[in-house]
Amino acid sequence: MARIVMKFGGTSMAGIERIRSVAARIKREVEAGNQVAVVVSAMAGETDRLVNFCREASSLYDPHEYDVVVSAGEQITSGLLAIALQAVGVPARSWLGWQLPIRTSDGHGSARIAEIDTTALNKSLAQGEVAVIPGFQGLAAGERVTTLGRGGSDTSAVAMAAAMKADRCDIYTDVDGVYTTDPRIVPRARKLKRVTYEEMLELASVGAKVLQTRSVGLAMKEKVRVQVLSSFTDDDAPMADTLPGTMIVGEEEIDDMERQLITGIAHDKNEAKITLTSVPDRPGAVASIFTPLADANINVDMIVQNVAHSTGSTDVTFTVPSADLARSLEVLGNAKGDIGYVELVHDTRVAKISIVGVGMRSHAGVAATMFKTLGERGINIQAITTSEIKVSVLIEEDYTELAVRVLHTAYGLDAEDAA
Amino acid sequence: MARIVMKFGGTSMAGIERIRSVAARIKREVEAGNQVAVVVSAMAGETDRLVNFCREASSLYDPHEYDVVVSAGEQITSGLLAIALQAVGVPARSWLGWQLPIRTSDGHGSARIAEIDTTALNKSLAQGEVAVIPGFQGLAAGERVTTLGRGGSDTSAVAMAAAMKADRCDIYTDVDGVYTTDPRIVPRARKLKRVTYEEMLELASVGAKVLQTRSVGLAMKEKVRVQVLSSFTDDDAPMADTLPGTMIVGEEEIDDMERQLITGIAHDKNEAKITLTSVPDRPGAVASIFTPLADANINVDMIVQNVAHSTGSTDVTFTVPSADLARSLEVLGNAKGDIGYVELVHDTRVAKISIVGVGMRSHAGVAATMFKTLGERGINIQAITTSEIKVSVLIEEDYTELAVRVLHTAYGLDAEDAA
Repeated sequence: MARIVMKFGGTSMAGIERIRSVAARIKREVEAGNQVAVVVSAMAGETDRLVNFCREASSLYDPHEYDVVVSAGEQITSGLLAIALQAVGVPARSWLGWQLPIRTSDGHGSARIAEIDTTALNKSLAQGEVAVIPGFQGLAAGERVTTLGRGGSDTSAVAMAAAMKADRCDIYTDVDGVYTTDPRIVPRARKLKRVTYEEMLELASVGAKVLQTRSVGLAMKEKVRVQVLSSFTDDDAPMADTLPGTMIVGEEEIDDMERQLITGIAHDKNEAKITLTSVPDRPGAVASIFTPLADANINVDMIVQNVAHSTGSTDVTFTVPSADLARSLEVLGNAKGDIGYVELVHDTRVAKISIVGVGMRSHAGVAATMFKTLGERGINIQAITTSEIKVSVLIEEDYTELAVRVLHTAYGLDAEDAA
Repeated sequence: MARIVMKFGGTSMAGIERIRSVAARIKREVEAGNQVAVVVSAMAGETDRLVNFCREASSLYDPHEYDVVVSAGEQITSGLLAIALQAVGVPARSWLGWQLPIRTSDGHGSARIAEIDTTALNKSLAQGEVAVIPGFQGLAAGERVTTLGRGGSDTSAVAMAAAMKADRCDIYTDVDGVYTTDPRIVPRARKLKRVTYEEMLELASVGAKVLQTRSVGLAMKEKVRVQVLSSFTDDDAPMADTLPGTMIVGEEEIDDMERQLITGIAHDKNEAKITLTSVPDRPGAVASIFTPLADANINVDMIVQNVAHSTGSTDVTFTVPSADLARSLEVLGNAKGDIGYVELVHDTRVAKISIVGVGMRSHAGVAATMFKTLGERGINIQAITTSEIKVSVLIEEDYTELAVRVLHTAYGLDAEDAA
């Protein structure tokens, strides 16, 4: 007997027909003798509807009351799934965030889970009941309702799995797993059988939108085995533990045989490049650029400082999220006197390409292959950042798909039998 | 300073614009120095939407989970109204049923309020906050969410007013008060300034759909002064305590000067007449008719037993709700052998006309005036029932409007200056 958490997103909850199909899938896990807790999202579109009500009521809405309003979406689907489970003969009950309770910080609107009391839950599971738990919600000090921020249901599921000491946390999503790269760009992309937490974090943060980043970090910290599965395989499909999804696990679980040099390739077109020309090459110059950006809560990513010109000045290039470009330019415009640059140049037609893999830790030359492969296709590299398990380069946006494709081939990731 | 409860129905909560207008009305009460608790319904149509989800999920839905689902509607409007109040500078917070808590029986789907803990609420009101409370919901043993049954928000409001020892409970509805009769039938109907609990109960139970009957009974028991007001008078209207609504009060508050013989006239077309002919005139005969109906949970209203024929048999006539007619005929058909009647006749083209008024207690001849007035117009009376403050007659349905009009005039209820 295993103890598992199953998490279903908004698309799986969009209407009674789909909720019924979710109930059928849960029933198969129960009939296999497993103890099951289910974490659900609101019906697709419902959270947006509720958020918009709050915004309409006041642009400066009280986050305490916002949480009361938007948490209702998951409350509704929890009750409905419990009804649908009972209708197919599976004992079930809903446990709202305040009922367990799921204790959180009091950061209303984006609270963090602090502790989950599983006393009542364990009793219910031991009686053979399926526990249906609304994702995204919790209870703060003062017994007030909180929510975890958008996409928080993934985090709820992982936190539940950790608290319950579950054997597995199955996340059912619109995609059927994590791929070596975006299959819309590279048809020969392969679904990964396993990926490490660290790799998933890097892949998620550079644009592979499968799981909320925070949930992956929590899974890594709590050593929760997370499985990403499709909610749209048919009802007669085999059970989750034999389904061809992607397991997200600790590095120690991946043996040397299956370890690849590079696990996946991600791309991100949502960055903008900013260059300040002829910044005086003196101590404190760089700080005078990045301190006001940090004060404005703007996340700077890739930074390149050119070698000093003979004139005693240098060009500084970096990227910011496209959404923050206008604000960044305003901040830097205001700081022109302090920084002492000559020109402020920006470019939104850039893309970040990242190769990710724990294998590169023990292999030299991984980055060199990347630079050489791109160079051979005449793709110019505008900036580079590296971490222990990732190399990212900034290139002209038009070359995004070409770059991903040639790198996918260069690192031996192409599926052999695909089209 | 007064302490008041204000209750707003689904039409008043249907969309942010209307919620804003409700907030403006509350603000005026607060600025007049009153302590205010507000009880809200779900947005118009929302409860139906949620109930339908439950029915779709399973025709035999678990009432525990039904309550989790449908209580979400009032949770949403509570949070939104709190936001709208804060936006106009009125300190406010929502208090969900489980937060106060509002303790109820565990009759899920139609629970009864047992006790309301006002400790936290009183503290909040004393700090000058408006308390926004979702109607219709509560908390049963085992800390599970309950709902009070459709229309339960009126009961929530009256129960809150009783628990808070409020000076007044203002119910804002689609109508602007209680009238002497249906103004669509009698344009000269007058709005009543005051009506007693007993009269309101009789008027409500025979078809004046202004307040949920249960809430009136509770108001009577707890001596809560209830005021019925329109939610649709404009924002610049004077405050509630000077608004021309209807106060529902104890009999002792109505002085002799304003006491009328008859307070109002109600009509109800939702009854069906059943006659059993030639029932043997022996002990136990009547019981053999009504026992199987009671066992089938069918509510029998007016009963007439004719004098015995010389043959030793009698005809028995009574009414049942139209919705229960088919079931009643089936039950009586099955019991034909036991009862021993000859024919089973029914008629749905009947209407019950009731005159209601505490004044009739001390005046003889009130019923005689009714019979004489109807007789003069050739309206035949098929059955009669009376209570201490009510006389009801069953007539042919086609005469409903005529009967109401002539009685309204006969008892001096016509407004002098109306059209």
